[in-house]
Amino acid sequence: MIYLDNSATTKPNPQVLDSFTKASTQYFGNASSIHGIGMDAERLLRKSREQAASLLEVYPNEIIFTSGGTEGNNLAIKGIALEHQNRGKHIITSSVEHPSVIETCQGLEALGFEVTYLDVDQSGLIEIDSLKKEMREDTILVSVMHVNNEIGMIQPIKEIGEVVQNYPKAFFHVDHVQGYGKVALDIQECHIDLCTISGHKIHGLKGTGVLYVKHNVRLFSLAHGGGQERRIRSGTENVAGIVSLVKAMRLAKENQPKLDEKLTSLKNVLIEQLHSLDRVVINTPKINSAPHIVNFSVRGLKPEVVIHALEDFDIFISTKSACSSKSADESAVLIACGKDRDIAISGLRVSMSYETTEKEIEFFCQKIKEVIKKLSEVMG
Amino acid sequence: MIYLDNSATTKPNPQVLDSFTKASTQYFGNASSIHGIGMDAERLLRKSREQAASLLEVYPNEIIFTSGGTEGNNLAIKGIALEHQNRGKHIITSSVEHPSVIETCQGLEALGFEVTYLDVDQSGLIEIDSLKKEMREDTILVSVMHVNNEIGMIQPIKEIGEVVQNYPKAFFHVDHVQGYGKVALDIQECHIDLCTISGHKIHGLKGTGVLYVKHNVRLFSLAHGGGQERRIRSGTENVAGIVSLVKAMRLAKENQPKLDEKLTSLKNVLIEQLHSLDRVVINTPKINSAPHIVNFSVRGLKPEVVIHALEDFDIFISTKSACSSKSADESAVLIACGKDRDIAISGLRVSMSYETTEKEIEFFCQKIKEVIKKLSEVMG
Repeated sequence: MIYLDNSATTKPNPQVLDSFTKASTQYFGNASSIHGIGMDAERLLRKSREQAASLLEVYPNEIIFTSGGTEGNNLAIKGIALEHQNRGKHIITSSVEHPSVIETCQGLEALGFEVTYLDVDQSGLIEIDSLKKEMREDTILVSVMHVNNEIGMIQPIKEIGEVVQNYPKAFFHVDHVQGYGKVALDIQECHIDLCTISGHKIHGLKGTGVLYVKHNVRLFSLAHGGGQERRIRSGTENVAGIVSLVKAMRLAKENQPKLDEKLTSLKNVLIEQLHSLDRVVINTPKINSAPHIVNFSVRGLKPEVVIHALEDFDIFISTKSACSSKSADESAVLIACGKDRDIAISGLRVSMSYETTEKEIEFFCQKIKEVIKKLSEVMG
Repeated sequence: MIYLDNSATTKPNPQVLDSFTKASTQYFGNASSIHGIGMDAERLLRKSREQAASLLEVYPNEIIFTSGGTEGNNLAIKGIALEHQNRGKHIITSSVEHPSVIETCQGLEALGFEVTYLDVDQSGLIEIDSLKKEMREDTILVSVMHVNNEIGMIQPIKEIGEVVQNYPKAFFHVDHVQGYGKVALDIQECHIDLCTISGHKIHGLKGTGVLYVKHNVRLFSLAHGGGQERRIRSGTENVAGIVSLVKAMRLAKENQPKLDEKLTSLKNVLIEQLHSLDRVVINTPKINSAPHIVNFSVRGLKPEVVIHALEDFDIFISTKSACSSKSADESAVLIACGKDRDIAISGLRVSMSYETTEKEIEFFCQKIKEVIKKLSEVMG
């Protein structure tokens, strides 16, 4: 199996799964119980929180453990909106965000909030001047993703953070789901107030994630109850999930420098080989893009047909993102980048991981060439 | 170890954990991906949903998989409130609900909703006449728990459902977290629109749960995004967690009749033995209560001192609920039942599971007797 859909989800690292199993068995207590079994779980939770904080270079009480990226993005955006609506009801995001951001904003529009969706340039990047123009006195939140899940461009987070910082009523949220472990991000330096990370994108388990919430930021809780996680996210702590997540975060961070080197080299091979093929247009920008994602379109071929043809060789790639793969047939991200419809309906994504080898990429390049040739013949 | 805090959390059943590990490894794909690895995960998800539906005797599309009881309760209550506020802004609940219900209602009060907290009788039960009196034309939700987590009484869910049914604008939510697998509940017969179940209370894993949402009920989503789970709860499906949850649900349901017999007998022994002790008052009502919970107070002794004394014999019980164990020192539930403060600050809870043995209960009875005697002497 050549699995090249790591931006949809990754295979759990066996060490991560092992840590989950051990913690589930040996530390099954409720971390809020006052007896020894609860306290054992609570100690492990505390240690995990400290480790997560140290990996993100933030304070332990700024770590809110969640069930994943979608929850993190929803909690950040709805949490700010519902808590701080007295300050203003204007939110700024971009037209290339993940559905968990775009649709959350649309949900808030139904509740009376006003949302500005910033346009992007041809590389998918937000222009700082547009942001400056849209910032208002009643803007309470700017939400921008770090690395785009479909085409991999990296937004100018630091520059955005500097703009938002001039508006003391506005908070800055970054969806870091595709970035963590691939492209470094300095939360402090970028003036980030809220930052979402998901476990299953970094070889952790599904159902795990972190929302960084700066110590002085208040959110309307989407999970009221026992008061866990700074009263922001109540519920019995999934200690085993948390332990496994922190392990995945540590491994991802430790391996990032050498992974970057490896994947950048594979990405260059991929882009070069794909670029030479008829009908193929590379959508991932050459600079300012993450090392693990290459998005390309094959003009005139339906992407699902290409995907299924590659499956015959045990190769797995995707169309756009899994979270929008079953809806509309054109990629909203590619449209936002100004691509014509031809390109926007034929996008394909290769997304690599630490397990991806040079040999696999060579085999993929060979097979995609054959598949395109064959399908083009069939199309006439 | 004699673990008698199963209402706080249970030890995962090894079969359940095993099913999680297998699914995590063998079905790691994103169930929303269109390729074979995604479709394998999707098939497993669909099968799990069908099984869960069959266990609850509802339709598969009425099963919304969540991260647990707190999320389920929040999603049901906030989801109805935010979606249907144009119909009315009045909610009815009771004064003996779990914090994830009470505090969610308080959160909604801050957003302009009006909440009636029904009083209960000395057994902790809602009086149908009070409910009838409080129902209004603008009531959009009635939320009542099935089995109380602190003292174990069983609310008259069917009678409540019949009242709510007369108000077509009002939905009926039941927190079934402590009831599932212990006390049968017929969702259809009780006219329930929303019903919360948690995995880790039934020997499943933390971070798993189900919210039953009747097919024609719309909720404001707390997790917008990829549109998973009927657009009510987006996010990459935690297929392994879901598989493990459904296994736990199946085992719990299959074992319920013989578990009921066993626990009822142990509960009677416990109540009889405890009743004979000086200073002890039994708080769990004799009738209309679940088989696994016995709540009692030891007048004049601090519950945490009793708990820690029992720990010396490797016995683990709790004060009230883990979700409120670190907050105020009196039990809001016992106060609501009209107990005097003496009793309300000295509540202790024994909660049993399928693993609890007669021998353990005998040992516990012997040791609690010794502990009370010794501590009473120290107190003078």
